Amino acid sequence: MIVNITLPDNTSYDITIDTLKNMTFDRKVVVVTNPTISALHLDYLTSKIDAKELSVVTIPDGEEYKRMNTIETILEHCFEHKLNRSSLLIAFGGGVIGDMTGFAASIYQRGIDFIQIPTTLLSQVDASVGGKTGINNKYGKNLIGAFYQPIAVNIDPHFLTTLPKREFGAGIAEIVKMAVTFNSDFFKWLEENDLNDEENIKVAIAKSVETKAWVVSQDEKERGLRAALNYGHTFGHVIENETNYDTYLHGEAVGIGMTMANALAVKIGYMTQEDSNRVTALLEKYDIPTTYNIKDVEDFYEHFFLDKKSLDNKIKFIVPKGIGDCEITANISKEDVIEVLKGFNS
Amino acid sequence: MIVNITLPDNTSYDITIDTLKNMTFDRKVVVVTNPTISALHLDYLTSKIDAKELSVVTIPDGEEYKRMNTIETILEHCFEHKLNRSSLLIAFGGGVIGDMTGFAASIYQRGIDFIQIPTTLLSQVDASVGGKTGINNKYGKNLIGAFYQPIAVNIDPHFLTTLPKREFGAGIAEIVKMAVTFNSDFFKWLEENDLNDEENIKVAIAKSVETKAWVVSQDEKERGLRAALNYGHTFGHVIENETNYDTYLHGEAVGIGMTMANALAVKIGYMTQEDSNRVTALLEKYDIPTTYNIKDVEDFYEHFFLDKKSLDNKIKFIVPKGIGDCEITANISKEDVIEVLKGFNS
Repeated sequence: MIVNITLPDNTSYDITIDTLKNMTFDRKVVVVTNPTISALHLDYLTSKIDAKELSVVTIPDGEEYKRMNTIETILEHCFEHKLNRSSLLIAFGGGVIGDMTGFAASIYQRGIDFIQIPTTLLSQVDASVGGKTGINNKYGKNLIGAFYQPIAVNIDPHFLTTLPKREFGAGIAEIVKMAVTFNSDFFKWLEENDLNDEENIKVAIAKSVETKAWVVSQDEKERGLRAALNYGHTFGHVIENETNYDTYLHGEAVGIGMTMANALAVKIGYMTQEDSNRVTALLEKYDIPTTYNIKDVEDFYEHFFLDKKSLDNKIKFIVPKGIGDCEITANISKEDVIEVLKGFNS
Repeated sequence: MIVNITLPDNTSYDITIDTLKNMTFDRKVVVVTNPTISALHLDYLTSKIDAKELSVVTIPDGEEYKRMNTIETILEHCFEHKLNRSSLLIAFGGGVIGDMTGFAASIYQRGIDFIQIPTTLLSQVDASVGGKTGINNKYGKNLIGAFYQPIAVNIDPHFLTTLPKREFGAGIAEIVKMAVTFNSDFFKWLEENDLNDEENIKVAIAKSVETKAWVVSQDEKERGLRAALNYGHTFGHVIENETNYDTYLHGEAVGIGMTMANALAVKIGYMTQEDSNRVTALLEKYDIPTTYNIKDVEDFYEHFFLDKKSLDNKIKFIVPKGIGDCEITANISKEDVIEVLKGFNS
């Protein structure tokens, strides 16, 4: 399956969802990966690559290494290997690897090509589309980076066979997100099909990628519509923050966040309780958490304002309108939000 | 005078060559400058700006501070002042300030707006057009950066009144460069008019900016034509390097480099000796150096290969074809180049 992405400036690239093909490059190639993926799949990847010169830079695994130091490690490797403006980086790993490789590619000699080969379900459906690259710093997540597009994305379901079950669920959460906000037919299909089946997961990835691609093509720089992709994230970020990023995977926090956003939608009459229950049921089918115990409702509310997207002191909520549509709104009363938060004390 | 720049992706901005107008911004603004410019002109600038919040970050003066540390100082200031995606940076200084402010703007929250207010003649005619931003590292100059365009460039000749005479000449060298490579009428005009006159220098800036804008609009990412802007630079970079960057200003080294490129053009029959002499005469009118003593011709030649643009082991020379046209070629024999270099032992 191939999904073609065309950007507003008319550049374009393909997302291929299939077993990796052999790749031949008449230029220097650097693969950026981490020790986990390297141990499991690097031989498989390199057996598919024929390049003028191939080298690998392995960076530490984990969100805490997503910072400028690590970018400098990648760049250093590129300089040592005398990469020029025609050279190529390949991001081989999850979202952290993709974000950092893309950022490094964007600033090496003012920008060189890079290819995404995402290995987690989350990065396959989400991080490999949209051109968001970046790193964290002490002020927050993804605060330094660039919008920079890969020249190709290759999604090979083979890598999912070694993915821990919880990480698989975290990826499913993002798939459900795309369906709830933009595509009711896709949501019905998800209710009826088992994503543990390899053919089904390929279809689901393709559908998610297509949907996200459509959204991004409308709004590359996140001025409007694209904000809808943050459905579940406004709440999810607070949950991740409250739990020091060590309790839930990002996708799991988004799962809970979607359940909260749905409760808000029901509260203000945008969604029926029945539709909200359907979303919860679908998430729970893949063991994605949908409950959370908010200890201090006021404190949780204040946390919204620490998010970079709220620097102007307004919180934008992405609220589903039934299933398959949504609205981005800054006009929800604090009272309504507090009331909904009070419902989360399981 | 206003020169409009339209980029291949159809974004567009104006370069205004005139006394600074009052500017009103309904957003946070950070001015990036250095102590020299700050002491001379910051009050003048801030008297023209009305912003939601205005702050100034002063970074050390000089090419040796054009590095990642300084970028982090700028970003730190932006985070401390809680700039958001709608905020604005203003680069207020020469090329170093412009390159770094542009790079910082390109990576702060994945890109915020910036305006160039260049204060040296060199940056007015050259660095403020083309979207090249970046920093140096131990491997070389401008090796990390981004192509990132300002939303506006304001060129106020007022700042030239405090510019040291040598720096003025270094700027003229870049003006001459544009004329020799692309515009014979402009070259004749330069021969006939004194650029120490304020109205004349405005015309010369506008003409240079227009020419460079045309070149860049054809080739934003420097794949072809834009390389012609490196006329004089292939030689100039070696001169700068041999003299540890402490003998000649960049524009001065380019002045000598153009004289060398002209000698090469005469050697291979692209230019008459008479035209070559006209260029030399124009440069010398503004006390721009045109002679240089090469001690070791072979060593000078080897230095070409250390330039990042030659990582593939081919040197591209930009050779003028008469006055007003040029050719980019990698097909000049080492013998011819050596022969020309031998002529420089004044």
